Formats: sequence, structure tokens, C-alpha cells
Amino acid sequence: MSNLRNLINDLVIANRILSHEDVVDAYGHVSVRHPDDPTRFFLARSLAPEFITTGDIMEFSLDGAPVGTDKRAPYLERFIHGGIFEARPEVMAVVHAHAEDILPFGLTGGTPLRPVIHSGSFIGSDVPVWDIADKFGDTNLLVANVEQGQDLAKCLGQNSVALMRGHGFAAAARSLIEVVRMSVYLPRNARALWRAKQLGGDIKYLRQGEIDARNRGYSPYSVETWRAWHYWATKAGVGNMVTRPDAKVAVSRKGAKLAKKPAKKAKLAKGKRK
Amino acid sequence: MSNLRNLINDLVIANRILSHEDVVDAYGHVSVRHPDDPTRFFLARSLAPEFITTGDIMEFSLDGAPVGTDKRAPYLERFIHGGIFEARPEVMAVVHAHAEDILPFGLTGGTPLRPVIHSGSFIGSDVPVWDIADKFGDTNLLVANVEQGQDLAKCLGQNSVALMRGHGFAAAARSLIEVVRMSVYLPRNARALWRAKQLGGDIKYLRQGEIDARNRGYSPYSVETWRAWHYWATKAGVGNMVTRPDAKVAVSRKGAKLAKKPAKKAKLAKGKRK
Amino acid sequence: MSNLRNLINDLVIANRILSHEDVVDAYGHVSVRHPDDPTRFFLARSLAPEFITTGDIMEFSLDGAPVGTDKRAPYLERFIHGGIFEARPEVMAVVHAHAEDILPFGLTGGTPLRPVIHSGSFIGSDVPVWDIADKFGDTNLLVANVEQGQDLAKCLGQNSVALMRGHGFAAAARSLIEVVRMSVYLPRNARALWRAKQLGGDIKYLRQGEIDARNRGYSPYSVETWRAWHYWATKAGVGNMVTRPDAKVAVSRKGAKLAKKPAKKAKLAKGKRK
Amino acid sequence: MSNLRNLINDLVIANRILSHEDVVDAYGHVSVRHPDDPTRFFLARSLAPEFITTGDIMEFSLDGAPVGTDKRAPYLERFIHGGIFEARPEVMAVVHAHAEDILPFGLTGGTPLRPVIHSGSFIGSDVPVWDIADKFGDTNLLVANVEQGQDLAKCLGQNSVALMRGHGFAAAARSLIEVVRMSVYLPRNARALWRAKQLGGDIKYLRQGEIDARNRGYSPYSVETWRAWHYWATKAGVGNMVTRPDAKVAVSRKGAKLAKKPAKKAKLAKGKRK
Repeated sequence: MSNLRNLINDLVIANRILSHEDVVDAYGHVSVRHPDDPTRFFLARSLAPEFITTGDIMEFSLDGAPVGTDKRAPYLERFIHGGIFEARPEVMAVVHAHAEDILPFGLTGGTPLRPVIHSGSFIGSDVPVWDIADKFGDTNLLVANVEQGQDLAKCLGQNSVALMRGHGFAAAARSLIEVVRMSVYLPRNARALWRAKQLGGDIKYLRQGEIDARNRGYSPYSVETWRAWHYWATKAGVGNMVTRPDAKVAVSRKGAKLAKKPAKKAKLAKGKRK
Repeated sequence: MSNLRNLINDLVIANRILSHEDVVDAYGHVSVRHPDDPTRFFLARSLAPEFITTGDIMEFSLDGAPVGTDKRAPYLERFIHGGIFEARPEVMAVVHAHAEDILPFGLTGGTPLRPVIHSGSFIGSDVPVWDIADKFGDTNLLVANVEQGQDLAKCLGQNSVALMRGHGFAAAARSLIEVVRMSVYLPRNARALWRAKQLGGDIKYLRQGEIDARNRGYSPYSVETWRAWHYWATKAGVGNMVTRPDAKVAVSRKGAKLAKKPAKKAKLAKGKRK
Repeated sequence: MSNLRNLINDLVIANRILSHEDVVDAYGHVSVRHPDDPTRFFLARSLAPEFITTGDIMEFSLDGAPVGTDKRAPYLERFIHGGIFEARPEVMAVVHAHAEDILPFGLTGGTPLRPVIHSGSFIGSDVPVWDIADKFGDTNLLVANVEQGQDLAKCLGQNSVALMRGHGFAAAARSLIEVVRMSVYLPRNARALWRAKQLGGDIKYLRQGEIDARNRGYSPYSVETWRAWHYWATKAGVGNMVTRPDAKVAVSRKGAKLAKKPAKKAKLAKGKRK
Repeated sequence: MSNLRNLINDLVIANRILSHEDVVDAYGHVSVRHPDDPTRFFLARSLAPEFITTGDIMEFSLDGAPVGTDKRAPYLERFIHGGIFEARPEVMAVVHAHAEDILPFGLTGGTPLRPVIHSGSFIGSDVPVWDIADKFGDTNLLVANVEQGQDLAKCLGQNSVALMRGHGFAAAARSLIEVVRMSVYLPRNARALWRAKQLGGDIKYLRQGEIDARNRGYSPYSVETWRAWHYWATKAGVGNMVTRPDAKVAVSRKGAKLAKKPAKKAKLAKGKRK
């Protein structure tokens, strides 16, 4: 149960980071699969991510139905999460957001979104664009039922990110830390590519071997990855909620006040060097 | 009378949101029609929207004359509001602003501003550009009398937004919540289109059927729409002023301190699910 | 003497506004001519504008020499101010800054900087570009002596703004309020033009008659102009320093806390309506 | 020893400035060579620069090995620093960062990054682009060993900055103050060039003679250079740590509260005028 509590904490942290880093605003959401029951996932009730606390997390089955008697209003688009968790057993966390700087790449095929910077490698070499109109015709563009969620998941396939035309993106990863990181760097990669396009000349995308090399070396608890998670959480005001599975004790409250004092007792950096 | 007080509160909230979301700065304003007298509307005295409180709201007739003996200095361009309220009986709220990112679309016909993202759908499929010089020749570009306000309203026609060449935009909607939302997402839609243009290739605009579908489903008090209003108000520092017509009591003061504690008592999300 | 104290206060306010609005950073400065002695002007000692208070203001003669025995380090480029005050007797205030978004227009003649938005009208229809290399060859680009200041002033001529190639701009106006306003809207006008350029099609610049009409109507103490000065000062943290020459008393301290309470006693808006 | 303490303080300040000015985020680092032992350098342990305090600084030999028994996790890419310090005896400080706005110039040869604005002059007339794949094939793009660090240093040659394709940049200078300044203005120069490119026409780069003139006049303790260091440090919340080698006493704590009171005792500006 303690693990579950930490996971819910991490989900709250993920919400706050995505809000503070401008990936979500009043809209957009992040979910995590139940570690003990792959047919269920956690997602907040309908609330702006910046305001979410542990009490706002709901539990859903893969068809988007709330578990038990929870009557609170859920996010309309919870079917995005259910659809992807159903289709991809190895995926443990999903983000859906409208991050502004990725939108242009869903509006035109003129320049496909592909990784150009090392921090963007985790989006993978292929980022498909899902157009809800292809199968469902004229809609309000929202993923509002199981069938639409499944169709989006089908378009996503084995990739990490799918753009949604005129709407946003869906991202899937093996952990909350990874899906948050991917979602933060996805817009940055988009901006770098968009600007490079304006400078003229041929663009050097990441090589497939580079994408693969980075993917192989990834671990959510490496010193390097953890550093960003801790940094983003602290900036978002929830540094005090950060815990590490392999740490004896939770990280101290130092995050609450940014960098005022030396963090003498922090054990964070003593993990395995890489 | 209680309803009127809530409406004035909402008008203050609208001012603060538009300022916090960078739609207005020292200039720009938002009005709401009097619910009981369609020949009158409310608009603040001449003051930067960020500073406006309930005591700053004035009442005007459609010709821009202050009601009663109110001697405070009004906004020069109140004729924009009067002109649109006169021409469009169903319109209940109007925004005029200089939001920077929409300006380029009023300066050239090279790329018409049209909806490309779902949150931009409410601007409607046609966004006319009003050029004050067409009828009035060399002016200071400000809408400074009834005739100019009426001419702008004529150009707006049955649309939701008109760009004003070299100046800004005017937006009209059925409620304050809707006109604020439209004004916040208008610049975002403009940026997405402007950037897509730079990526090359054909741009996929929203389909007419999609615009219609979104318009049909809109309600200012749906869970989804309310979530953004509450979020923006809280970020702008007036979360404590938010009220819901169908709620028994006003929302608690939780907004004053951003997301520090779980909002255990919030009833906001218990409305009708959609 | 009381007037002089108010003018020094206004100069401090101008410094803070320009810093808060990102026109200056550690570099850039604003000056005002001595109201009783046209051969002298006030300018801060060498300090970032954000930190400047009344005690930091120095007095200079038009050749850039400090008046009296003041030994504090002055800005290196005070010759910009002296040169313009010498050449333009009607100019009462000067800004020099490196505002990032105007720099591109000094680097290429591909798109001349001209007014396209109404708030940019005060820069005037012609914005010459001064290249220090034309007369002085290889320098460090700084205006470091009287001769260079005079040459810049010559290029400025009767215009309001001159761009300085690879460096920034110099702006001149009839009052501090006007030169600050011009300096804040200059980058905004530049961005609108730059983005319009990317949208394709012919750009509609402000018409000469429009520029003239706006210029005729300008007054630093009009309700409209004052509203922005008061707004910017308050946002920059010096709302409490704002005074109005035609007001009986100084504006209250309400600015110190942004928009927390209704400003019941504010007399600001009771001036002449226009 | 007192000098060493000041140097470590300056290194902390450098970290905070680079973070506050958006040059680094969770990633990126700055080092300084040991003043008494050119075979050693100081660099923080693996921690986001915003959080670094004096206790986080580690000492390394040029091969990237921690000195003594320090077991804390170091930055993976410390080999960038070692490689450059080894190859360039006159270099005293190094920055590596991923500043977003320089990335496009490493992705395409369409528009080489060169100085166009005076504050960008210190990057030098030639900014080579290092592609790790040229020698090392498919990697995770990180500079993870001595050989890679040496190869990057070789590409840098006698220049001040090298771009790293798909990754970021490395900058080298004669002092911490200089390398920080260069790193802050590098992205600004990149943006000015990128935007000028969009305006059309031929771009006027800084002339070689101008770059040389600026370089000759540079001193980390000139009034002008110091002004920016003091400004950036204060904005980053470490104004109280600022010291000047030629000052009798440390700068007072005024920086802790931004510009609230006149800095009556500040001796900063009394240095040599230039």
C-alpha cells in the first residue's frame, strides 16, 4: 500500500510539473496504470492539473468507467488513456495535452515532427498524426468514447507519441517520470525543428542509431533523469512530495524554499554513477 | 438584484482574466449587457483591467452615454460595445483588445485567420477584417463615436470576431464566459496558424462540420468550460469571487492560495457529466 | 523645486518601467532635460535601471560632463543623450536601449521598420538606421564621445527613433511619458511587422494621415495616456511614486499592492474626457 | 585561501545566473579552473544549477576524476570541461548548456551562427559545429569520456564557442564573468540573426575589426561588465554573494530585496571610468 501511496503522490507531482512547464493549462491530463491490476488506471477528477492533490485522484477501468461508487465528474477524454493502456500492455503512463508549440505539426504535413535534439529522442523516430475526422467525420474533436480512444491507440501503434490534428498529442511511456520528460521536451524539439526550418539548408535529424542508443541507456532513476524530475517538481512547488523507491527516507522539504540553503543531507546524488 | 451582483462580479473576473492571460494590458475592455434591460450594458471606467473592482463598473446606454449622473471618465472606445449590442440582440458580452499575436492577420490578407485548433473553433469560420479607413479616412484608428461603432458592428455581421486593421479585435458572444474563452484562445489559434504556415504544405483548417459540432455542444456551465473559467480566475487572483448560478453557495476561498490544500468541499465537479 | 523633485521621481519611474517591460536589462538608459536649463539633463549613474532610485540621478551638461563635483561613474553612452538634446531643442526626454525585437530591423534593409499598429504610430513614418561604421570605421559599437553622439543625432534628424545597427535604438520625445510609451510599443510594432511578413501578401502600414492624426491628439496627461503610465508604474513596483502635475495631491499608495482593494479615493479618472 | 572562497562563491553565482537567465535548466553546467593548480577545475556535483550552493562544488583533475575521496555523483559530461581546460591553457572558465535558441543553428548549415549584435561579439567570428557522430558514430550524444571531450576541444580550437549538433554548446573564456556573459548573449544573438533572416535582404554581421575592438576593450571588472554581473546575480537571488576582488569589503546585502531602497553605501560604481 505504501507503494501505491507513492505512486499517487508521483501522479500529483506529474500533474503539477506538466502545468508549471506549460504542457497543460486548464486542459490536458496524465494517468498511471495500477501497478497490481493492469486493467485499471489512475487519473484525476475533472480539475485543472495545477490544483490537483492526492484526494482528487480517481480509479478507472480500461473502458473509462470509474471504479466503485465514485460519482465525481471525470475528464471527458479519459478514453484516450483507457485506449492506450488496453492496446499497449507495457505502457504504464499516458499524457494527453494541447501544448501549443506542437500544434502546427499536426496541421500540415509540410515538415514531419521528428527528433532533432537529444532530449527529444524519446518521442521516437516516427510520430504519426491522428485525424479524428478520418474515421468519425465531423466531431467536436474530443475523444469522447471507447471507440475513439481505441482508434487513436491504433494510430499510435508501437510509437511513443501521436499528434492529434487540430487538438494536441497523446504520449505513452514505461513510467510517469518518462512520460513527463517526453511531454516537456516534445514542444522544445518542435520549436528547434520549426526554427531550423526557417534557417534554410538540410536538417540533420537524430540518427536511428542515436535514438536507439539513448533509449537503451534510459532509466527513470538514473542520476541524470532523477535530477530533472526533482528540479521540475521543486519549481512546481511540490518538491516536498518527491520520493525515491530506492531511498530509505523521503527527500527532505528543502524544495519548498528554492535553493536558499545547502541541501546537506540530500542523498539523491549518491546513486549509481553513469 | 443578487443576480446583478453576481454578473458584476463576473465582469470583474473577466477583466482580471483577460489581463492575466495577456489579452489586454493598459488598454482593452470587456462589457456585459444588462440582463433586465437590453438597451444598457456594463463596462468599467477608464482604468487598466488588472486594477478593476466592482466599484469601477459603470452603466451605459447603447449610444455610449453613461446612465444617470456618473461623471467618471469612461473608455473612449465604448462605442465598440454599444454598436455590437445594438446590432446583435443575442450577444450578451463583448471584448475589445489589442492582443499582439492577432495583429499580423489584420495587416495582410496573405493568410486569413481561421480556426485550426479545437479551442479556436468559437471564433467561427469567417473572421472579417475591418479597416476604419475604408469609410472614415485618416483617423487615429480609435472607435470614437457611434457611427464608427456601428460600422464595425456591420462588418462583424453575424460572425463572432472581427479583426481591426492596425489595432486589434472585437469579439461577441452569448455570455461573459464564452467571450473570455474566445479571446484567450484567439491568439493561440493565430500562433498555431502562423507557425504552421512556416512549416510548408497545405494547412488543415477545422471543417465547417467540426465548428458546428463544437458550437452545438457549448454551454458556459458545462464541467469542461467551467474548469477553465475557474482556473483562469484563480491564476488571476480572483478565484474567491467565482460563483456558479446553479450552486447553492459561492465557491470557497481556496483559489486565493494556489493549490496548497485539497479542495475537499468543492462541489464544482458534481454537475452534469458530458 | 517641487517640480524638479517630481521630474526626478518620474525619471526613476521611467527607469523601472523600461526594465519591467523588458526594454532595458543591465544596459540601456533614459534621460530628461532640465526644465529650467536647456543645456543640462538628468541621467542615472552607471547602474541597472531596475535598481535606480532618486539618489542615483546625476546631472550632466550637453557634452556629457557631470555637473559639479559628482565623481560617481556615469553611463559610458551618455553622449547619445547629450547629442540629441543639443540637436533637438524641443526634445525633453531620450531613451537608448537594446530591446531585442528591434535588433533584426537594424541588421538588414529587407523590411524597413515602419508603424503598422496604432500604438506604434509615435515612432513616425521614417525610422533611419544609423551605422556607426559609416563614419567611425571599426569601433566597439558604443557611442563613446561627443562626436559620435552628434553623428547619431544627425542621422536621427527630425525623426522620433533611430535604429543603431547591431546595437539598439535611440528614441526622442517631448516628455518622459511619451518616450517611455514609444519605447515600450516600438518592439511590439516590430514583432507585428515581422510576423505579418511571414504571412505573405502586401502589408498595410499606417497611413501618413493616420500617423499625423494620432500625433495631433497626443497629450501625456490625457486619460488614455495616463492610464498606461499608471499601469506600467504599478506593475514595476513604483505606483506609489506616481504624481500628476494637475492633481492636488500625489496618487495614493494603492499601487504597492496590485488590485487588492477598490481604489475608492482615486481621482485619476476624473480629468477631462476625450 | 580567501581568494579561493570568493572563486567558489562566484561559481555558485554563475550557476544561479545561468539558470535564472534560462541558459541551463536541470541540465548544463559551468566550471572554473583552479587558480593555483592548472591541472584541476571546480564543478558542481550532479544537481540542477538553480539549487547549487558552495557545499555542492567538487574538484576534478583534467581527466574528469574527482580529487581525493569525494564520492558524490558528478555530472556525466564533466569531460567537456576537462577536455577544454587541457587544450586551452589560457581558458579559466567553461560552460556547457542546451539553451534552446541556439539549437537550430546546430541542425542545419543554412545560416551559420555569427555575431550580429555588439553583445554577441565575444562568441567570435567563427563558431564551429561539432557533430559527435563524425568520429564516434551512434552515441547517446553525451560527452561521456575523455576521448570525446578532447575531440570536442579539438573542434573548438582557438574559438570561444562550439555548437554541438542536436545537443547544445560549449563556451570557453578567460573568466567566469566573461563565460557567463557570453552564454547569456549567445542565444540573444542567435534570435536576432534568425529573425533578421526572416526579414529578407543581406545581413550585416559584425565586422572583424569590431569584434577585435570589443575584445581588446574587455575587462571583467570594468564598470560596464560588472554592472551586468551584479544585475544578473541580484535577479537570481544571490546578489548578497557578489564580491569584487578590488573592493575593500563585500557588496552589501541590498540585492536580497530588489530595488526597494537607495543603495547609499554601494561603492560599486566608483571604479575606473571607461
